[in-house]
Amino acid sequence: MNSEKMKIAVLGGTGNIGKGMVLRLALQNLMENGVKNEVVIGSRTPEAAKEAAKEALEELENCGFDTSKIKIRGKSNSEAAKEAELIILTIRFDHVPPLLKSIREELENKILVSPVVPMVKVGSVFEYRPPAEGSAALAIRAMVPESTKVVAAFHNIAAGKLQDVVKCKAVHDSIICSEDEEAKKTVMKLTENMGCLKPLDGGSLRNANTVEALTPLLINIAKLNGLKDLGINFS
Amino acid sequence: MNSEKMKIAVLGGTGNIGKGMVLRLALQNLMENGVKNEVVIGSRTPEAAKEAAKEALEELENCGFDTSKIKIRGKSNSEAAKEAELIILTIRFDHVPPLLKSIREELENKILVSPVVPMVKVGSVFEYRPPAEGSAALAIRAMVPESTKVVAAFHNIAAGKLQDVVKCKAVHDSIICSEDEEAKKTVMKLTENMGCLKPLDGGSLRNANTVEALTPLLINIAKLNGLKDLGINFS
Repeated sequence: MNSEKMKIAVLGGTGNIGKGMVLRLALQNLMENGVKNEVVIGSRTPEAAKEAAKEALEELENCGFDTSKIKIRGKSNSEAAKEAELIILTIRFDHVPPLLKSIREELENKILVSPVVPMVKVGSVFEYRPPAEGSAALAIRAMVPESTKVVAAFHNIAAGKLQDVVKCKAVHDSIICSEDEEAKKTVMKLTENMGCLKPLDGGSLRNANTVEALTPLLINIAKLNGLKDLGINFS
Repeated sequence: MNSEKMKIAVLGGTGNIGKGMVLRLALQNLMENGVKNEVVIGSRTPEAAKEAAKEALEELENCGFDTSKIKIRGKSNSEAAKEAELIILTIRFDHVPPLLKSIREELENKILVSPVVPMVKVGSVFEYRPPAEGSAALAIRAMVPESTKVVAAFHNIAAGKLQDVVKCKAVHDSIICSEDEEAKKTVMKLTENMGCLKPLDGGSLRNANTVEALTPLLINIAKLNGLKDLGINFS
């Protein structure tokens, strides 16, 4: 992993958060300290993933970046997961169980990153609705092989800011939780080079519930106070 | 309430958060837009409350403030509550039920502010432990008369920063939740003049659980990342 490029799958990479994540990862190949990587977008239909990969490269070209050092491909979720060392789940919580079941074999020994936030809209506000395990992260932990290193991260970044790679240099904090210290460090290094996030060690996966719960709070506060695309900072 | 001073009771005002709150409230009497007020510190023993009131005035004098316009007194919790229009509960969650039971009659039609965070230390980390109602705020709502206006506020400010009225001008966000819009506005105005906090409308009391849960998260993140007295900002 040192000199080679890290293969990263963004499953559900055709959604808003997924798209932003793909751009921010791909750009790290142009940064001195960036984590060099190849991104594979995963989707239920490989065609949609391939289209998203093409669009991401075009977007980066349109922004004036040299894309010759950037590799973004599109595949089915299971093929993307198979290739990757690190898998990011940018899908809705209710889609998580069937997806993880279908790619279970591809998850052995890999890093699985969950930015997943289970929430529902009640009237005009969003409410956090964690599963019985206490959080999406702990539920995911229970769904995957023992050897999978589950890391909770990237919950509290607005899709709009993530996707706006040129303008958005705002540095918000991203709290990262895992039982696996090495996997946590890898994700913290990725985060450090997102161009809009500063990683904070959030301790164990047991702390992920509060981090997940912040997302509906951010959305509600934004709406109630006439703000937009809120992020969070600790100081 | 317009030209008169608002009477504010800080119950448990001899503790760390209480002390800081008393100083920040008292100083508003010296600010052009501050909410003019008289602070009554409440404690289980009136002597401790009187001593805390004396110390607070001395502290402000030592900092060079003109205390002739500032009134801070000490009383028993129930006497303090009886006098006040607005009551702030700066006590531990497990002390809340017996206290509220003993002062129930004094709470009719008043604003009751809860910065209370139910949490426990498990090993080296703090964990949020909300009661069955979902949050301290909702549990308190269920313990008081129907006419009491419960407002959740001031959960995420470190005692050290709150007490350091001269040096600490850091402006952190304070999320304020209530079903009573008028009471919420009153507390938001108080907050605005704390000198270290910016109020954000957090919507209904149902949202207070996430705000309460932030406190153990802040403490844990501070410890894990070598930081101190963390506050939070949304932007």
